[in-house]
Amino acid sequence: MRTSHLLEQLMEALRCLPGVGPKSAQRMAFSLLQRNRQGGLQLADALSKAMTEIGHCRDCRTFTEEEVCAICSNPRRQESGEICVVETPADIVAVEATGQFSGRYFVLMGHLSPLDGIGPSDIGLDTLEFRLQNEQISELILATNPTVEGEATAHYIAELCSEYSIPASRIAHGVPVGGELELVDGTTLSHSLAGRQKLY
Amino acid sequence: MRTSHLLEQLMEALRCLPGVGPKSAQRMAFSLLQRNRQGGLQLADALSKAMTEIGHCRDCRTFTEEEVCAICSNPRRQESGEICVVETPADIVAVEATGQFSGRYFVLMGHLSPLDGIGPSDIGLDTLEFRLQNEQISELILATNPTVEGEATAHYIAELCSEYSIPASRIAHGVPVGGELELVDGTTLSHSLAGRQKLY
Ligand SMILES: [Zn+2]
Ligand SMILES: [Zn+2]
Repeated sequence: MRTSHLLEQLMEALRCLPGVGPKSAQRMAFSLLQRNRQGGLQLADALSKAMTEIGHCRDCRTFTEEEVCAICSNPRRQESGEICVVETPADIVAVEATGQFSGRYFVLMGHLSPLDGIGPSDIGLDTLEFRLQNEQISELILATNPTVEGEATAHYIAELCSEYSIPASRIAHGVPVGGELELVDGTTLSHSLAGRQKLY
Repeated sequence: MRTSHLLEQLMEALRCLPGVGPKSAQRMAFSLLQRNRQGGLQLADALSKAMTEIGHCRDCRTFTEEEVCAICSNPRRQESGEICVVETPADIVAVEATGQFSGRYFVLMGHLSPLDGIGPSDIGLDTLEFRLQNEQISELILATNPTVEGEATAHYIAELCSEYSIPASRIAHGVPVGGELELVDGTTLSHSLAGRQKLY
């Protein structure tokens, strides 16, 4: 027998968070109710604002509530003409943390996966092609995950670059094969960026 | 450089949850934005309702949005006349899961801790004393945690019971000493309830 319907709803709702099972959800709910209701209310507010107001950057597709994100609209970021292509916004955080890259990004929000029906336009390659046509791009650095799908996606984009005669490179395989980019340590990722191989 | 102020606020706010560090907060925020905005909005709603509407049961002090919780107001729960005293609402969940107890509860929301300035009225012992005076209670089962503070609290309440000639018992030390009641497995907790020792 439960003593609170709202408490049950809260425990159920907390399980939408990755890695949170029934036991953690219970600990979280009781902890907030007992020790930090103010924090719980701030979290409610931050969640509802983020879920409704955050969209995607017009240029790079990363998460932002602006039309164009702070990286894309920074003139110093535009100077180098380099664009680093990653699978997720979390990968931007990982690349930024290396301090080795001062260009702009393009976020695929996934990778090509024909078996799942995910084709070029689903990962924004029409937007990317538009940029290849219309911007002064010195190099496209392909930093998709070192997985089968990530490699295939990188090679697909490299072919697109060759059509527009824009140099494309792949980050070095210093990163562990089969892993996820955002979990790689900064040193490995730095080496990986420095040792990138020219594809075209 | 970050691309979204609201995203930063969300990652910061998620850290009010126990066990959530910067890396988990980032994974949670990106996961909701990318795959489950509806779930994020439901969580925001559940949080704000729970934080503002859930109070404490007038009789047992557990979390509930009603004046008196579903356990306390259940006539069949009142029949046995037994009251199980626990430290937290999570302990009610643990005791209920054993299926060995069909009485009512009293939740201290902590334990006596004179060094931290937590005295009898801070853990609701004035409310409990009022119940000892005014209700037909057959037995008070003291299921505080098997820690130094939990033991001291149990003995303090046992003395209170002796003043009103109400039988008090302590759950058996089948539960690991130094641990927390809510983490004990159901079988151990069942044995512990069955082997309770009479204190008065
Ligand atoms: Zn952008
Ligand atoms: Zn109650």
